[in-house]
Order: sequence, then structure tokens, then C-alpha cells
Amino acid sequence: MKFEYKRLINYYETDKMGVVHHSNYIRFLEEARCKWLEEIGIPMESLESIGYTIPVLEVNCQYKFPVTSGDTIIIKPIITEYNGVRLKVDYDVTDSKTGKKVINAWTKHCFTNKELKPINMKKCNSEINKKFEEITDN
Amino acid sequence: MKFEYKRLINYYETDKMGVVHHSNYIRFLEEARCKWLEEIGIPMESLESIGYTIPVLEVNCQYKFPVTSGDTIIIKPIITEYNGVRLKVDYDVTDSKTGKKVINAWTKHCFTNKELKPINMKKCNSEINKKFEEITDN
Amino acid sequence: MKFEYKRLINYYETDKMGVVHHSNYIRFLEEARCKWLEEIGIPMESLESIGYTIPVLEVNCQYKFPVTSGDTIIIKPIITEYNGVRLKVDYDVTDSKTGKKVINAWTKHCFTNKELKPINMKKCNSEINKKFEEITDN
Amino acid sequence: MKFEYKRLINYYETDKMGVVHHSNYIRFLEEARCKWLEEIGIPMESLESIGYTIPVLEVNCQYKFPVTSGDTIIIKPIITEYNGVRLKVDYDVTDSKTGKKVINAWTKHCFTNKELKPINMKKCNSEINKKFEEITDN
Repeated sequence: MKFEYKRLINYYETDKMGVVHHSNYIRFLEEARCKWLEEIGIPMESLESIGYTIPVLEVNCQYKFPVTSGDTIIIKPIITEYNGVRLKVDYDVTDSKTGKKVINAWTKHCFTNKELKPINMKKCNSEINKKFEEITDN
Repeated sequence: MKFEYKRLINYYETDKMGVVHHSNYIRFLEEARCKWLEEIGIPMESLESIGYTIPVLEVNCQYKFPVTSGDTIIIKPIITEYNGVRLKVDYDVTDSKTGKKVINAWTKHCFTNKELKPINMKKCNSEINKKFEEITDN
Repeated sequence: MKFEYKRLINYYETDKMGVVHHSNYIRFLEEARCKWLEEIGIPMESLESIGYTIPVLEVNCQYKFPVTSGDTIIIKPIITEYNGVRLKVDYDVTDSKTGKKVINAWTKHCFTNKELKPINMKKCNSEINKKFEEITDN
Repeated sequence: MKFEYKRLINYYETDKMGVVHHSNYIRFLEEARCKWLEEIGIPMESLESIGYTIPVLEVNCQYKFPVTSGDTIIIKPIITEYNGVRLKVDYDVTDSKTGKKVINAWTKHCFTNKELKPINMKKCNSEINKKFEEITDN
């Protein structure tokens, strides 16, 4: 079974157009990634405690259909690229009630160490590398 | 059993001090109120659909102990005043792991109609009034 | 002279990594667009008052070099596509002190009317259309 | 002349009620404090570079009259209490166009050192202490 993240939209995440402000989806994607990492046993906080971070290098988001407060979205992240150095995550985001596509999005990441230098996870941590390889979609 | 709202802290809700930015707690309180209204059968969205809003008139928040991303807080809202015109909600907010008090807070509200005029819920809608009276703490 | 938007980074816009959270740049781009529209005489609020909105259809942002609170960024928006129906804006964003590139970004938009239906600005409002044509970069 | 901070309201700071979300005012107050500190020669970043922070202990905000995107507010912070250990700032916030009171607010703070222990600024740094005494309203 693929990982899914359900997220209720809050009132403060809407804007005067009556729908979610477009910047907030970028935050929801981060929530989905963090929850997923937790689910596979490498929560962001434990990664950080050993000095690793996974910065965002690029984000792309296409807005398809707006949702508003009280609505629930379902985010399905899929790792479409992983080589130890770079990571690409695609997101399928739909309205839980209507099934309508809300956004199409992807993010690109690297991995950094305590000195914020880019690292190759294959060489630095085989256990974490294995986790990422296992959930990468081929 | 009293209503409780569990909330995982997101990465983007921290600031460079390494903990939740103080403004975000005000948003968590709103989430707890909205979830509570949903629980008792009058979700904010259905109130809005019949023209009612519950604006915030005043907010007070004392910061006791910081939390950060990955932590979970438990918010227990308690209605300490309700007379149909005014509403006061107190919040007991603790760290789910340590039990430590995170903030002490309260918010004051009124009720408004479609024209954004303050109303007396006792006179305007006996069903909603009854819901609020039932959950008011005496 | 091209339009420039200077923006001081606020404390609450940083995250625990010590730099601006990546989602906030999407908001800074909106600020730059709004300020630019105001500058050329069609502030968003006056567009809205006659029923027009300019929703974001897609956003792309490449993160190059982080900034933090107290830093000032300079955003130079450039309209690279405009045909009355679609609008594409590119953004050159640099650190005011070092001149370093902070992000590379672009956003795509359409125009909608009171009923939130897409419109052709060429056909709907020649005055606004002229303003957009004048600032489009060719 | 007293310090004033002018702030244009952004689109993303509104919510579906069509006005600024109440949590955002807490952020505007922080902006005003930071700008004021910069103005008197002790910008937050230089305080942080020598290990000092000024955490918020309590915030109180009364919402009087809403503003929305495109409006400009004027924030006048006044230090009403300062003894080296505690700091209280009151804020007079008005709509720049109408002069109407937007919110009444105050925040309470302490000072902490590198170890995040509360300190007495009178004893720790006479230069910074003097700056605070000079701008304290008596």
C-alpha cells in the first residue's frame, strides 16, 4: 500500500478569494514528506539529530482546483528519482470528497551534513539509503 | 469526557530560535475551536453557510515552555463564558510527551450575522444556542 | 527603468534551519506582483472592485542561496509572456548586500471575471490590456 | 518624534472573511519591534550575534476594526515597562487612511543569554540597557 497523507484545511489557510492561498500547498507537501519519513522510520527530527537535512532545491506546483477550509485533501507522495545525491518527489493531491485533482506538484532535494555540505547518502549512511531505495518508485 | 485536540508541530511552524514561532499558537487555538465545533455538530462551514461568523474580539497568550517540529501538543478548550452575545474560551495546552504546560491562553468572541452585525444567539438560533450552553463549563 | 521590489526578511519568516522557509518566497513573489500592479496604476484592489482576479496557475521556484531575518532581497519581476489570456512572470531575486542570486522563479496566471470564468483581457478591458502590453518584455 | 512603523497589508495575510487573519497582527507587532530596535542601533541580528534574545512571554490583542489587503496600518510601539529584566511594549495600531483604531495590543518580554537563561540587561550590558532606558516612556 502506498503512503497517503490526509490533511484538513484550516480557516487561516484561506485568503480573501475564499480558497486556500496558493503558497500554503507548498507547506502541505512538506507535511506529507515529514509524515512519510516518520512512517518509514526516519523522522526528520532523528535525521537532524545526526546532522542531516534534506533541503528543497526546487518546487513546482500546478493549481488545478481550489479547496477551502473544512475540506480535506489527500496527498500521495511518490519518489520518482533517488540516487543518494538527489531526490525527486511527485505529489498527487486530490479532494477527499470529490476525488478532483487539486494540484500537481513535485519537489527536488539534496542531502546535507552538519556543515551543510551536500553528501551522497549511499556513501554516508547505508541504512538511510536503503530506506529511500525501498520507497523509490520504479 | 472533555474535548481534546492533538496537534503535531510542523517544520514550517518553527523559527530560527528552533522552536514554534509565538504567532502560530494563535492559529492552533483556532484549529482546536473549529474541530470542537465540528465535533458538537455545528462545523464553522455550516455556520457560515447560514450567515453566521464567530469573530475573535481579543486574544491572550502566555508562553510557558516551547515546543518544536515533531512534538505534539494537546489543546483542551473550555468555554468559561457564554451568554448568547459573548463567548470566552480558555485553553489548556500541554506537550503530549512531557505533560508540560506549553501556553496558557484565552480568546473572546461575539457572533455576527450576514451583515456582520453582532447578534444574540439565544434570540437568533435556539438550536445553536443550546449546543453552546451544553458545552459551557460551569 | 525596470521595476524592483525591496523586501526586508522578517524573523517569523525563518525556520529552525536558520533561514527563510522555502514556502515564503512564493509569498514574496506575490508581494512583488501586487506592488508592480499598483505602480503601473492597476492595483489588485481596484481590479477586484471591478470583478477581475489574476489567479496563479503554476509556480516554479529554484532555491539558490538562502537569506535570513534582517537580510533584504531585491525582486525584479519581468513579464515574459502576455497574450490577454495567459500571463507569465519571471523573477530575478538577489540579496541586496551580496548581489548573490537567492532564487530563480516564475509564475503563470490567467485572468478571471466575477463568475471566476477565464477571460481574454484584450476583449474585456482595453485599458488594462494596454498596461500589461506596455510592461511585457520582448 | 516617536517611532512609527508603516505596514502595507499583503493579499496572503487575508482570510476568507475578506480581512486580515487575526493571527497576523501578532507578526506585524514583531516587525514593528524589530524595526524599532534597528532604528535605535541594536538590530535583533546584532543582539543575536552576541547571544541575546528577547523572547515573547505574553501577548494580548484586542481587535477593533479590520483592515484588508492594500490597506496600510501604522504601528506605534511604546515601552511602558523596563527594568532590565522585563520589558512591556504597548502598541497603538491605526488605519493610515481613516485613522481608525485597528487593534490595541501589548507584549511582555524578558532577555536571555546564549544558554537561554534569563538575564538582567542592567548588569549584563550597560550600553544596550541605556538604549532601552532612553526609549522607555515615563
